[in-house]
Amino acid sequence: MKLQFTKMHGAGNDFIVIDSTEAPFTMTTNQLRFIADRHLGIGADQILIVEKARTPDTDFRYRIFNQDGGEVEMCGNGARCFARYVYDRGLTTKKKIRVETMKGIIQPELQDDGRVKVDMGAPRFRPEEIPLNTTGLSHLSRASDTLWEVKAAGYNNWVSVVSMGNPHAVMVVGDVEQAPVSTVGPAIENHPAFPERVNVGFLQAVSRTEGKLRVWERGAGETLACGTGACAAAVAGMRRGLFDSEVELQMHGGRLRIEWDGTPTGSVFLIGPAATVFTGEIDVPAI
Amino acid sequence: MKLQFTKMHGAGNDFIVIDSTEAPFTMTTNQLRFIADRHLGIGADQILIVEKARTPDTDFRYRIFNQDGGEVEMCGNGARCFARYVYDRGLTTKKKIRVETMKGIIQPELQDDGRVKVDMGAPRFRPEEIPLNTTGLSHLSRASDTLWEVKAAGYNNWVSVVSMGNPHAVMVVGDVEQAPVSTVGPAIENHPAFPERVNVGFLQAVSRTEGKLRVWERGAGETLACGTGACAAAVAGMRRGLFDSEVELQMHGGRLRIEWDGTPTGSVFLIGPAATVFTGEIDVPAI
Repeated sequence: MKLQFTKMHGAGNDFIVIDSTEAPFTMTTNQLRFIADRHLGIGADQILIVEKARTPDTDFRYRIFNQDGGEVEMCGNGARCFARYVYDRGLTTKKKIRVETMKGIIQPELQDDGRVKVDMGAPRFRPEEIPLNTTGLSHLSRASDTLWEVKAAGYNNWVSVVSMGNPHAVMVVGDVEQAPVSTVGPAIENHPAFPERVNVGFLQAVSRTEGKLRVWERGAGETLACGTGACAAAVAGMRRGLFDSEVELQMHGGRLRIEWDGTPTGSVFLIGPAATVFTGEIDVPAI
Repeated sequence: MKLQFTKMHGAGNDFIVIDSTEAPFTMTTNQLRFIADRHLGIGADQILIVEKARTPDTDFRYRIFNQDGGEVEMCGNGARCFARYVYDRGLTTKKKIRVETMKGIIQPELQDDGRVKVDMGAPRFRPEEIPLNTTGLSHLSRASDTLWEVKAAGYNNWVSVVSMGNPHAVMVVGDVEQAPVSTVGPAIENHPAFPERVNVGFLQAVSRTEGKLRVWERGAGETLACGTGACAAAVAGMRRGLFDSEVELQMHGGRLRIEWDGTPTGSVFLIGPAATVFTGEIDVPAI
């Protein structure tokens, strides 16, 4: 099967984007794994399938698959690349695009500066929403946030917990470059307090509007940029009283801006870059 | 700069191949690094530039660049991809192709089974040719080979040393999957006995014509397949009396066949696959 594709990235989180608006999407799990392989295929963190809208109030539908071929719910960096893709390819002339995802309707918006703004929904904090098993965990309050003590890898880690549709534990560190991401990250990820495991953010507050962040992603290890991780870290920093309601976080793959009004039902907005890297054609074997 | 490219791999060792037979090659080190980046660019172990011949007795010239943008001498897997590329693209109708490299003229040959055979030159064994600093090292004889004791990572490692244009230390293990590649590999790579560092092969002999191999590559870590590493391991196994003069080595990225007549000036022949994965076009920034 000849397949046309576009390779994109959002702050270093990279995607193979496939236009399935004209032809139905028929790839098998093995074919998805093959194209995601960085040595034997095209290589990407995830595969993004653009489909026609199925309901009258949306413009498109999109689906995201991981390297292992499994379908996932949502990805802030992917939503930005999606919006950039459909606009640049002329599939729409709208700059505010309504798109159906597995998780519901999202509405990415192309800004005049070239960045894309995505409504990531409201954060949730209750232990059962993470999920966090609080049995035996100490906790304390910091401004409007609650910190939980998760002992792992020889440290007493005090973490904020935030769900952005997926679970995050965020700890504040003095210097992200010195943070023990590769040891404490997996130890917290797999700690029994997190029955569905957890993404682990290491946040350094630089000023009230600026921070640095590294994220250990559940099942993936440290990544160049994690969109939901940036949202969770910004929200945790705001609730701890470290940040104002708008903050820019520097990650290894690029810079992401997060805005949140601090209300329980207020959406978190993620603003960041989306870049087209190359276009190509691959002959995908029947596997 | 708009750049057309082809992505290929030889047993999992992957290449961006660029046709510079019509236009001069003008890429900067930063541009090479950018396209080799697996998240922000195209991604590959190495970049292979195909140029016109400059002398009447050769068909082409080719150059290889590493991910860091530095030019390197030779690569067995790259030579196979080069041959497959120029033949499949119709740049030549010859199946035995004479090509000028940084290291001299090589002659890859397309076989009827689709694999490509490359003359990798004669192996060398003298310590000063590796280079190996033998001061304080114990040694012993095994058939026609000499083993050197390199103490590293808590083991007394008995290694054969072979130069295939680049330095290799090869040790025989009972089970490659259990071999301590990620600890012993870097410890031997950086051992003072190897002043220019060394590639480290972990070889398991399965029969007189078959083996399994993992290679820790100098400066790169464990790779899916190393062409010169396969040659060095096969030659070491033959000299130790474990293999006949033709052997197939299974590596994580694929299967490579090595032939050597055992004479001091006899060339080692490497036979293996070369696959085209996809073609593409990238807009390379002026960096």
